[in-house]
Amino acid sequence: MNYIIGIDVGTTSTKALLYDTDGKIYAKANKGYTLYQDTPDMAEEDPDEIFNATLSAIQEVVAKAQLTDGKVIAISWSAQQHSLIALNKDFKPLTRTLTWADNRSEKYAREYKENGRGMAMYQRTGLPIHPMGPFYKLLYFKNEQPDLFKRTAYWVGIKEYIIWKYTGVLKEEISMAAASGLLNMKTCDWDPEALKETGITKDQLPELVDLTDKFQGIKSEYAKVMGIDEDVYFVMGATDGALSTIGVGAIDSGVLAINIGTSAAVRTFVDKPRIDPKARLYCYPIMKGKYLVGGPINNGGIVLSWAHDALFASEEQAAKLLGMDSYDMLSKIAATVPAGSDGLIFHPYLGGERAPLWDANARGSFFGLNRKHTKAHMIRAVMEGIMYNLYSVTLALKEVTGDPKAILAAGGFAQSKLWTQMMADIFENDIIIPESYESGSLAAMFLAKMALGMEDKLEDIKKYLGKENKYQPNEETFARYRKLVPIYLRLSREFSTEYKAIADYQREFPG
Amino acid sequence: MNYIIGIDVGTTSTKALLYDTDGKIYAKANKGYTLYQDTPDMAEEDPDEIFNATLSAIQEVVAKAQLTDGKVIAISWSAQQHSLIALNKDFKPLTRTLTWADNRSEKYAREYKENGRGMAMYQRTGLPIHPMGPFYKLLYFKNEQPDLFKRTAYWVGIKEYIIWKYTGVLKEEISMAAASGLLNMKTCDWDPEALKETGITKDQLPELVDLTDKFQGIKSEYAKVMGIDEDVYFVMGATDGALSTIGVGAIDSGVLAINIGTSAAVRTFVDKPRIDPKARLYCYPIMKGKYLVGGPINNGGIVLSWAHDALFASEEQAAKLLGMDSYDMLSKIAATVPAGSDGLIFHPYLGGERAPLWDANARGSFFGLNRKHTKAHMIRAVMEGIMYNLYSVTLALKEVTGDPKAILAAGGFAQSKLWTQMMADIFENDIIIPESYESGSLAAMFLAKMALGMEDKLEDIKKYLGKENKYQPNEETFARYRKLVPIYLRLSREFSTEYKAIADYQREFPG
Ligand SMILES: Nc1ncnc2c1ncn2[C@@H]1O[C@H](COP(=O)(O)OP(=O)(O)OP(=O)(O)O)[C@@H](O)[C@H]1O
Ligand SMILES: Nc1ncnc2c1ncn2[C@@H]1O[C@H](COP(=O)(O)OP(=O)(O)O)[C@@H](O)[C@H]1O
Repeated sequence: MNYIIGIDVGTTSTKALLYDTDGKIYAKANKGYTLYQDTPDMAEEDPDEIFNATLSAIQEVVAKAQLTDGKVIAISWSAQQHSLIALNKDFKPLTRTLTWADNRSEKYAREYKENGRGMAMYQRTGLPIHPMGPFYKLLYFKNEQPDLFKRTAYWVGIKEYIIWKYTGVLKEEISMAAASGLLNMKTCDWDPEALKETGITKDQLPELVDLTDKFQGIKSEYAKVMGIDEDVYFVMGATDGALSTIGVGAIDSGVLAINIGTSAAVRTFVDKPRIDPKARLYCYPIMKGKYLVGGPINNGGIVLSWAHDALFASEEQAAKLLGMDSYDMLSKIAATVPAGSDGLIFHPYLGGERAPLWDANARGSFFGLNRKHTKAHMIRAVMEGIMYNLYSVTLALKEVTGDPKAILAAGGFAQSKLWTQMMADIFENDIIIPESYESGSLAAMFLAKMALGMEDKLEDIKKYLGKENKYQPNEETFARYRKLVPIYLRLSREFSTEYKAIADYQREFPG
Repeated sequence: MNYIIGIDVGTTSTKALLYDTDGKIYAKANKGYTLYQDTPDMAEEDPDEIFNATLSAIQEVVAKAQLTDGKVIAISWSAQQHSLIALNKDFKPLTRTLTWADNRSEKYAREYKENGRGMAMYQRTGLPIHPMGPFYKLLYFKNEQPDLFKRTAYWVGIKEYIIWKYTGVLKEEISMAAASGLLNMKTCDWDPEALKETGITKDQLPELVDLTDKFQGIKSEYAKVMGIDEDVYFVMGATDGALSTIGVGAIDSGVLAINIGTSAAVRTFVDKPRIDPKARLYCYPIMKGKYLVGGPINNGGIVLSWAHDALFASEEQAAKLLGMDSYDMLSKIAATVPAGSDGLIFHPYLGGERAPLWDANARGSFFGLNRKHTKAHMIRAVMEGIMYNLYSVTLALKEVTGDPKAILAAGGFAQSKLWTQMMADIFENDIIIPESYESGSLAAMFLAKMALGMEDKLEDIKKYLGKENKYQPNEETFARYRKLVPIYLRLSREFSTEYKAIADYQREFPG
């Protein structure tokens, strides 16, 4: 038997899974790293710390799996999008890696939004007008750190840097390049205008390759440390966005994949570029005839975690005494309140929001409080509000890609039956939850099999997905949500006029 | 020594205090009664149950005081405003008493607001256009209970009914008559147009007298039960609104009296009628050359009580174990958060609102939530939000009556130093808290002394008020509130467009 490692370099940690070529999991490992936030709008990580995390995660799965009958033949990569590192001519980092959450280029994104050039670039590259994008980060470096900008020989993302460090090969695959805002979505080559605007040249960027590009050449010291043969293949893989969509089996055009983990996303594949006239959604080429359209959402499960800590700290102790998971307790408490939380509406924008608002100043709110409302109403309203927001992104997606054929969902939220049923009720749609849980690394493993000629089309990933759970909308419940969703949406617009004022206050008086 | 009983017939209970003529308190009693809410927009009480409550309250203070050296020479009355009872020709109640909170005439108030007649009546009578007013309640009875309406010989309020029951005398004093919306504020007589619109005649209403009107004639059985001589004087007294303003010493024009108990109010005396062009404030004649202008506020301390129960039930147990008052605990928790609650803004309209919105559909909200916010921020924001609302009513009052010369405050909120200081900081004004606590019954006692010729001008109440505590605004703190108050006010307007939608939902799905 042969084995493949699927590895997912996330924003907070790297997960490695070791599979056999039938898709059976043999071992898992998870390694975290530090987020540097010296100023509120900064969000950096240390590329070498992340590299080391991948090294020890792989080392750990290999050790745990205790393989006796074969070897690891490929390592395939999923990673966070929008990261940016400056390298000198010897490929030494001149900066940490700026994550998608780094906000320092906000000024440039705003400028581009206001003068219309952001919209023009969005139409060429599919990157929404937002500081997350390496395109805008490059504008920041060019204008605010000109010396560093001049000294930089190469601009790369974290996945490219790590693969380079293992192998000395500097390549970038299409999906990750698209998320930089530097790739022309029609030609699938670096966009000349994007390069001109940012003032960089093609030879400062990695060679562009397909997702299934594979090569050998791991440095022997790393192979030794990990306990892997030197002829292991590196398979380029893709962005975590693309792979988690593939990994739930949402391959066909018009099948939606919704993920709610710490953050959240709504995505679907389409067969040609589709641009949102309101620029609420990205559109990234992934491979020939496959474009990923979607909305990235900051305020997913992290908002439930906030409510858990802010409102239920005392009850968490009680749950502990009962030997109960405290998130399960939250679902049980929320279940005591009727659907619609007796008319309490929560907007989950605790940390600003990307899709659908694209407003870093957005903030959270409870609206509709009356004297009957309790903490139990609040927690249910929080769960509902996260869903209303996802639903509003889905409405935007529907405008652009048409009615969904099916909705597949995954992520930590699915551990709550109540929350998953709520999704079906709010979306008025069947919701399918694939049993297999680690969709990103599963899809990375599958790409490796394609790269190695062991599979030949994406659709065939479905046989690795295990059985599905289906949640169906309940008529009595969705009648309530139908009344509340329009109020939620109108309030979103009305609130937006004051987001800047309150966010300015919070910046001026940081506590 | 002689004694006077000041008695305050409130919405939830009747309080009696027995004073000597120097203003020293000898005994207190408090008797509650039932609120009938068979339907959500109904809020009735049983007039005979309230009568009995006054009887046993007086009985109790007389018994407790154990007077040996003199006797009770007068009973003087403060009472809730806007109540209405239908009596037949034998003075038997045909209805319970409808309190100010009864909302059944909402349709008529809305109609009058929309067609402009409400504004015209407001300009004649000073009653804001709101279902609380007996004027609108009469329209309700006339249109929706025509038989009852025809059978009714007399229309009275709870104070008039109680005094009639003790003495057989049916009188009404100016301040209470004004709050009915049937009194012309210029002539201080029943308003012919108001009578015409409601379809009643002057002889269906009590005789109009001054606040200091006094008479004897208590029925001997009641005198006996209470342990009081039959020559005791009944002194008409006034509305609780007028008396609690007098009772904190806010007698001079332009001195504001702010009360925050369960509900709240901002009031000031002026020397001639003053009408608010936006009809946010009432204007009631009280005596010659004294008009009370003010805004009644539903959401006072009751909102803090809600937050206490909804958010801090677990901590209440902890406070109990510590032998600590749980409201004191809330202040201590709120004090751990900086002024401005790190940019969290609460609108306290849990139960709809009278001044300044006059919108029964208004609801509460938290706005500006970010991940740093905790339950401690919420409780501070609740206290601040109640104050922002009071401040907004004060701004309306300033437009009509000019800058306040001084601000006096009283009510349960003043038990919290933090909350009182917050008031000074938000109002950017010194706040004076009179030491004497039961301002309504104190002022009733004082009116009795005037009625009996023992005092001759209102100003002289000040000698009974004890020492004052003064809170001064803190510059660093009010700088923060100055930024937040405009946001609070703008949000009030923006939210208002969705109040009806969410309130309609809450009525359609009552849980
Ligand atoms: N220790 C405390 N700290 C802060 N607030 C308190 C404290 N104790 C009571 N309160 C507040 O005072 C309110 C009650 O005030 P008060 O006793 O004046 O009410 P009331 O007489 O029923 O009201 P009303 O004047 O509206 O009829 C409570 O709802 C609570 O919000
Ligand atoms: N038992 C549970 N019920 C509901 N939600 C849960 C439960 N456990 C975890 N979650 C939610 O899932 C989120 C984490 O999801 P996950 O997919 O593991 O995150 P990540 O994006 O970090 O991989 C948490 O923030 C929490 O909101």
